[in-house]
Amino acid sequence: MPLVTLLTDFGTADGYVAEMKGVLLSRARPPRSWTSATTCPRTTSRARGSRSRATGGASPRGTVHLAVVDPGVGSARAALAVESDGRFLVGPDNGVLSPALLAAGARAVRLAVGARAAPTFHGRDVFAPAAARLAAGDAVDSLGDPADDCVVRRTPEARRLADGAVEGCVIAVDRFGNAITNLVAGAAVAQRGGTLWCAGREVPVRRIYADVEPGAPVALVGSNGLIEIAVRDGSAAARLGVGRGARVVLRAGAGPAA
Amino acid sequence: MPLVTLLTDFGTADGYVAEMKGVLLSRARPPRSWTSATTCPRTTSRARGSRSRATGGASPRGTVHLAVVDPGVGSARAALAVESDGRFLVGPDNGVLSPALLAAGARAVRLAVGARAAPTFHGRDVFAPAAARLAAGDAVDSLGDPADDCVVRRTPEARRLADGAVEGCVIAVDRFGNAITNLVAGAAVAQRGGTLWCAGREVPVRRIYADVEPGAPVALVGSNGLIEIAVRDGSAAARLGVGRGARVVLRAGAGPAA
Amino acid sequence: MPLVTLLTDFGTADGYVAEMKGVLLSRARPPRSWTSATTCPRTTSRARGSRSRATGGASPRGTVHLAVVDPGVGSARAALAVESDGRFLVGPDNGVLSPALLAAGARAVRLAVGARAAPTFHGRDVFAPAAARLAAGDAVDSLGDPADDCVVRRTPEARRLADGAVEGCVIAVDRFGNAITNLVAGAAVAQRGGTLWCAGREVPVRRIYADVEPGAPVALVGSNGLIEIAVRDGSAAARLGVGRGARVVLRAGAGPAA
Repeated sequence: MPLVTLLTDFGTADGYVAEMKGVLLSRARPPRSWTSATTCPRTTSRARGSRSRATGGASPRGTVHLAVVDPGVGSARAALAVESDGRFLVGPDNGVLSPALLAAGARAVRLAVGARAAPTFHGRDVFAPAAARLAAGDAVDSLGDPADDCVVRRTPEARRLADGAVEGCVIAVDRFGNAITNLVAGAAVAQRGGTLWCAGREVPVRRIYADVEPGAPVALVGSNGLIEIAVRDGSAAARLGVGRGARVVLRAGAGPAA
Repeated sequence: MPLVTLLTDFGTADGYVAEMKGVLLSRARPPRSWTSATTCPRTTSRARGSRSRATGGASPRGTVHLAVVDPGVGSARAALAVESDGRFLVGPDNGVLSPALLAAGARAVRLAVGARAAPTFHGRDVFAPAAARLAAGDAVDSLGDPADDCVVRRTPEARRLADGAVEGCVIAVDRFGNAITNLVAGAAVAQRGGTLWCAGREVPVRRIYADVEPGAPVALVGSNGLIEIAVRDGSAAARLGVGRGARVVLRAGAGPAA
Repeated sequence: MPLVTLLTDFGTADGYVAEMKGVLLSRARPPRSWTSATTCPRTTSRARGSRSRATGGASPRGTVHLAVVDPGVGSARAALAVESDGRFLVGPDNGVLSPALLAAGARAVRLAVGARAAPTFHGRDVFAPAAARLAAGDAVDSLGDPADDCVVRRTPEARRLADGAVEGCVIAVDRFGNAITNLVAGAAVAQRGGTLWCAGREVPVRRIYADVEPGAPVALVGSNGLIEIAVRDGSAAARLGVGRGARVVLRAGAGPAA
């Protein structure tokens, strides 16, 4: 049975997610669907190489990912369906599908917007019907003409400094207040006791949250392979005042401030 | 396979929604179920003619909608099952089922409350079992005696003013801070550049959010066919200070304050 | 079809819950799964004898409950699978599985943590795979060696005072601000007009919320069989300032302060 996931910023108070599910489940052979996230921030950034939310991480091949974070709904921005790495993605052409579009061999088509589609809710009237067709086995090429100049938000590149340190930035903050950076690091670095500098503060790089005292900051390799800054049993965002874009510098060992 | 949706104000921190799903899924032939909303406000108002949350909008015929927003649980208020427009609805007789009850041909029965039902959680012990029976094919008449004087919350009627303008009010605010009114408007009005007056402010009527600058207010026809007031990339409720009950006046073209 | 529930504190903004579901649904014969709670507090306490969240309440026999509230992830704390009362539970050995572990005949095994498991996300890499195996019919004994000294958080015992009153405490606060105590009370007590003393205040014991005026405090027997303190149409936690650990004294009739 095909799978459809729904990533939106629609929240849990209104019926918007349910309206989209209604479209999927009204089909003769409804796909199995599950809600991925309902309060996804509009500023979501995703790193190349991460098991990103948009590509669904461990999702089975053939899964259809609906990603509707769409403040420009109804405007000239295109509506897309993408085939990428054996999965399908449907959503607005505003960068939310960037990781899928950047993958090798990705193909995108531009969905037609019917005259009866509500200009404020393409999630229900354009994207969900397209997802249902893909889940039913329709080829992505059958849904529209090729889309060539898609909007792609590239995660800032980390860069190596003259002294051997690596400079990057915070690209997302999760529910726990963990600040996720664009630094890809092997477990070796994390276990050897490097140091991350952020907001004028030296944060030890450790393996797990419990390697520091409650309330203390710690940097570690997150589950998506990226270095993140946390505060044990607390919020790094609130405690350290770090947010998206904050500059970070990683050194293999402890050292002076960057 | 029958469908059951769950609309509640139970939130995502406690097990209340899961307890209701447990009742549904313990059946020999469990229905497919999905959560519609979990933080539905108690003051929810619904407009006649809208694709309302309670009636499930685009839900397939035969779908059972569980709507448990029930601060009066255990009191003398009745427990209802309703058949309306080919769907079934189950919930308290406190107005939450109004759109379904107002539909032509709607039939309601009063559910029995067993002696062992927890007086504080009819969702689990009265409504979910009734929904399971309806999903299994039992007729609504088999669930109880006809209920005649059901509580119906009527959405205030919009009215035409002497000068041709239409006066209405805000009936709901969604997660984005969009203020949804009781004004039903064809797309023609929206595209022709009418004006909505609200809270002493003139708000242009446009087709989509992106028709105004970021941070600017805009009125448009929402996905349920009702005119709503939004602020692009912001919250109309917070920015304009409008909430439920706020008076609005719609004019076909720009004009003086109402 | 086997059932898997997910109880986490992962929230609705990130993809963590979806990553766990991806693991479950990637199986050849994916279980039916549903999300129990996504913002479960870390301090959750559960009472003996209650239809607790961890044991799933009315869940069908054979259901697998994933309970991942795991601030110590990656540390020396064990990863557990438990068979209890015909259900299975999977989660960290930090007390979150207490009600299941305390049940008569419960058996626990210690799950192996593979070298490739992300040290910050055992939910995806250890617990979800174990849950998938249990849902597919694998015996709990096949998942690891017996775990003997599991962490159990015992709910404080209520105790009878010299004057016949019963003393207990608040063990949880739910989304509505209802303060749930460890006092187990028959409906008879609730209906006969007892009194609960809490935070220097006398709270009448009644059957339902509607037995008091809007805004007034009331104590009643909650749907899990425990006495809880509520404020009608309001929050007892906010209004009365009661939280976890607050002392309460129940008297069969009205009387002087404890």
